[in-house]
Amino acid sequence: MSQVEPSRLGAEEIQALFDRSPFIAFMGLKVLSLDHDKSILIARMPLRPELERRPGTRQFHGGPIASFIDVVGDFAIGMLVGGGVPTINLRIDYLRPAVGYYVDASAVVRRAGRSTAVIDIDVCDPDGKLLAIGRGLYSPVKG
Amino acid sequence: MSQVEPSRLGAEEIQALFDRSPFIAFMGLKVLSLDHDKSILIARMPLRPELERRPGTRQFHGGPIASFIDVVGDFAIGMLVGGGVPTINLRIDYLRPAVGYYVDASAVVRRAGRSTAVIDIDVCDPDGKLLAIGRGLYSPVKG
Amino acid sequence: MSQVEPSRLGAEEIQALFDRSPFIAFMGLKVLSLDHDKSILIARMPLRPELERRPGTRQFHGGPIASFIDVVGDFAIGMLVGGGVPTINLRIDYLRPAVGYYVDASAVVRRAGRSTAVIDIDVCDPDGKLLAIGRGLYSPVKG
Amino acid sequence: MSQVEPSRLGAEEIQALFDRSPFIAFMGLKVLSLDHDKSILIARMPLRPELERRPGTRQFHGGPIASFIDVVGDFAIGMLVGGGVPTINLRIDYLRPAVGYYVDASAVVRRAGRSTAVIDIDVCDPDGKLLAIGRGLYSPVKG
Repeated sequence: MSQVEPSRLGAEEIQALFDRSPFIAFMGLKVLSLDHDKSILIARMPLRPELERRPGTRQFHGGPIASFIDVVGDFAIGMLVGGGVPTINLRIDYLRPAVGYYVDASAVVRRAGRSTAVIDIDVCDPDGKLLAIGRGLYSPVKG
Repeated sequence: MSQVEPSRLGAEEIQALFDRSPFIAFMGLKVLSLDHDKSILIARMPLRPELERRPGTRQFHGGPIASFIDVVGDFAIGMLVGGGVPTINLRIDYLRPAVGYYVDASAVVRRAGRSTAVIDIDVCDPDGKLLAIGRGLYSPVKG
Repeated sequence: MSQVEPSRLGAEEIQALFDRSPFIAFMGLKVLSLDHDKSILIARMPLRPELERRPGTRQFHGGPIASFIDVVGDFAIGMLVGGGVPTINLRIDYLRPAVGYYVDASAVVRRAGRSTAVIDIDVCDPDGKLLAIGRGLYSPVKG
Repeated sequence: MSQVEPSRLGAEEIQALFDRSPFIAFMGLKVLSLDHDKSILIARMPLRPELERRPGTRQFHGGPIASFIDVVGDFAIGMLVGGGVPTINLRIDYLRPAVGYYVDASAVVRRAGRSTAVIDIDVCDPDGKLLAIGRGLYSPVKG
């Protein structure tokens, strides 16, 4: 008989938490898929006009890209502990301009210890081209 | 007679660039002061409901804090070269929850080389308590 | 007929450069393998007593781990351009104490642009357990 | 009557811990001064031939600079809690080549919480020119 793990969140529960957070809801993040065993969470951020760097360019400002990385990394560990967790620090490398109608992020837990978790996050455009990479340290305790 | 440096931006010019960028305008950033000789730029981000982590808490989500740090750091070097510049990479350390009606950021150029500039950014609450610190590497070329 | 790429370094050439650098030679780094097409370089650092954090513990100090990450990341891009390159910045996350007779590092180029290259570096113990991860920004010009 | 704080380390005690660690002793680090109330620690690293990037250049390799930053940052919080502490993560920005007979580092605690401490570290040459800056997250518990 499988062990009950009530703290794990499914895609619908994460989406509900996204929609309840004013800022995440504003960004319009959508959960695409997740894998608890591999500790991977994938989500999408559509371009809305307020996220543009310059009007009409369809280029995301770097701020929303950093925010997207933060949130997807957060819930890659958060989905294992039952909710969003505090970010301790965050590192973003911008590799290419993020131009397009949406971007996708894939976050994977590299190490989950008792007091910290390290998550890697890749952001790609619709063609799978790498746009930015993030690495975050999170507190693995529901905040 | 003083040398003409047409690439330098004053507070009103930076504010105009802020207002023209859809994302920076959405965040509502206001230039407070600047010092070209000390390479310091100070700005404010008021809380608007969409920036909250959870509704009604007056706590800024970490994403807007990271975005605010990115922008103020960017224009600390950008004000010397005539406009916003590409962010190469960024580190954010979250020190305390950012709760309140606004936060202020102060960015200082630590080193401006020919191909990169390193900027430190402190974010404080209205009482001057340090909430988050950022360090960013920027390309010192108007992007 | 294949194109001549005189700037590419083979394993023996990298090893010769390692041995010629006083600090890298002191650390005793050994090239294990490389793949130019995948932009991957793998190397080993044996424990020598001077690298211990505390005497007799066989635990590497974090400084040599950071140094090892820096060098292997450096030559992952350097092997493509003909020599060691300047490190612009470096991020290290320590995941577990590094205890043992040697550690291995694997570096992969995530993005090589004209003016910067981003490299990810994983450090493992002899059992393949992840000890530390690094991410470095390098200037892709022989320094 | 002043409160006894037995966990605080003076300059001689830190120097003794430096000398007892094989790697720190190898680097030859010397405590120059400290201020518990301002949480500042200043130390020196002399050039020894094994620390050179290339023989005879008097340029420190970036690895020893990163290691120096790590150690001085570590003991800026460690001097308040009674010993060296685990480094969680570290960012180094290299600003200028480090050439000379010694370099000095000054570390200041930006924030000491219950489970993490953030430290900033500046490395200067004998003329006070800034060579590299570091920012580290440490566990504020004697390790």
